[in-house]
Amino acid sequence: MAADLSAPIFSTRAGLVTLGPELVGLRTLLEAEFLRWAGECGARPMLFPPLMRVEDLDRFDYFRNFPQLPLMVAGIRSECLHDVSARGVPLQAIPAGDLATAVYTLPSAACYNIYLHFEKTVLDGPLYVTTVAHCFRNEQRYDDLRRLWGFTMREIVCLGTHDEVQAHLVRFKKRVLGFGERLGLELSVETGSDPFYQPQSPRARMQQVFPQKEEFLYDGSVAIASVNFHRNFFGERCAISTPDGEAAFTGCVAFGIERWLHALLDRFGQDPAAAAAAVADGGFDA
Amino acid sequence: MAADLSAPIFSTRAGLVTLGPELVGLRTLLEAEFLRWAGECGARPMLFPPLMRVEDLDRFDYFRNFPQLPLMVAGIRSECLHDVSARGVPLQAIPAGDLATAVYTLPSAACYNIYLHFEKTVLDGPLYVTTVAHCFRNEQRYDDLRRLWGFTMREIVCLGTHDEVQAHLVRFKKRVLGFGERLGLELSVETGSDPFYQPQSPRARMQQVFPQKEEFLYDGSVAIASVNFHRNFFGERCAISTPDGEAAFTGCVAFGIERWLHALLDRFGQDPAAAAAAVADGGFDA
Repeated sequence: MAADLSAPIFSTRAGLVTLGPELVGLRTLLEAEFLRWAGECGARPMLFPPLMRVEDLDRFDYFRNFPQLPLMVAGIRSECLHDVSARGVPLQAIPAGDLATAVYTLPSAACYNIYLHFEKTVLDGPLYVTTVAHCFRNEQRYDDLRRLWGFTMREIVCLGTHDEVQAHLVRFKKRVLGFGERLGLELSVETGSDPFYQPQSPRARMQQVFPQKEEFLYDGSVAIASVNFHRNFFGERCAISTPDGEAAFTGCVAFGIERWLHALLDRFGQDPAAAAAAVADGGFDA
Repeated sequence: MAADLSAPIFSTRAGLVTLGPELVGLRTLLEAEFLRWAGECGARPMLFPPLMRVEDLDRFDYFRNFPQLPLMVAGIRSECLHDVSARGVPLQAIPAGDLATAVYTLPSAACYNIYLHFEKTVLDGPLYVTTVAHCFRNEQRYDDLRRLWGFTMREIVCLGTHDEVQAHLVRFKKRVLGFGERLGLELSVETGSDPFYQPQSPRARMQQVFPQKEEFLYDGSVAIASVNFHRNFFGERCAISTPDGEAAFTGCVAFGIERWLHALLDRFGQDPAAAAAAVADGGFDA
């Protein structure tokens, strides 16, 4: 094979993706658009550690609800280093017995680190933060750009009162749907629920009015974005308070970057240049 | 604490860094500059998987030479999921006995994936690729932005003949030193060697003439960039050939993004705005 530009524009293997230059460019355009939206609501761009502590993820009941999803990280136990190093045959894997105890995990969502970062904060008004992260979830199967083991999530988060968070989600729902319409993506909205934030109080009634999660589906099946209302779950767990001393509410809009690439390639006949032109045009409301 | 802009511009903990908005902005400017340089040499921007296979890293003798550095990733063994989920006390860690066998690792350098991607390629001329990755190395100690457990590495790689790779490294050595000079960073050059690519042949003589590694040190101690000559190590291991059928030579210029942030903050009195202005000005040769 000659190393020319006829190479595939992307490839996936075992839930991991390699992006060629055209999709790196398209991804940059998409990110610029989402960052522009974040800037318009005054969100601070921040970057958080690429690893989370097991004990922090556990504070959000993640291991209780989804023990199969997280991916732990661990070095080789010091007493095994010599054997690993001196092994005469090719290594295919490191046996669990050679691994050290895992104190860290890979993030499964971009925004958890935001709530941890602002632990014990008293807000002086609504706080908007945007971040992007490599996220990982152990799934049963992977499906091209539609379902990856490791993927990129951009989030724009609001921390504030119930009404401030709701306004944030309403605004972004409109924005995502409008952008999708201008791109001709014909997104449908599906209401979801998340066992993560199940109400355990009279607040349950609220769920009837405001869904916890709305997903924006391309082609009826691929959720390329979602708005998520966490109630005051993270505010309580991380002791983040509104100015009047109540546990803060939080909510996020989340974009699965590789899924947007999938939707755009599908919509524009696998032509990254056409998709890029549409994104460049589509960013502005008529 | 009020969530205002008097928050620290960054924080580190256990070798992991959180960047506030000012440093996210400075990082974006630096990346734009490095990407501009990459574009000028015709490098293709690509993005590779955030995880590498143990067997691939092993092909580069990494576990033989540095078994203490890599960080493996593993899920929880299926037969342990219930116990982890049902545990009544907070989790501090996942014991090694609960982990599955680790088939993947986190990258320890950005460029290895490039050589793996172009395995069994016959080049039709020099090939330039740039990529960026979260990299991880288990170190004995961490030191603020100067030495992190997880860090960001931008690389610009040349695959080609001996002379093409040398020309790439010579050009970028000049470029890095010129940029450092315009920023007032007073970089010093230190010649290093890398046990990784120790010559095992008469080519050893070549090392006398062309060093394997030159590091660009800020403040005499912090390597913020390096040029690395791998001989034909990766070309041989990955069966990448030059047009005349010889194993390709490879070399890279690598930038440690967080270390550049350290150097710039140190140089500009911890003022990200002053550093950003200098980077914006300093990118252009006089």
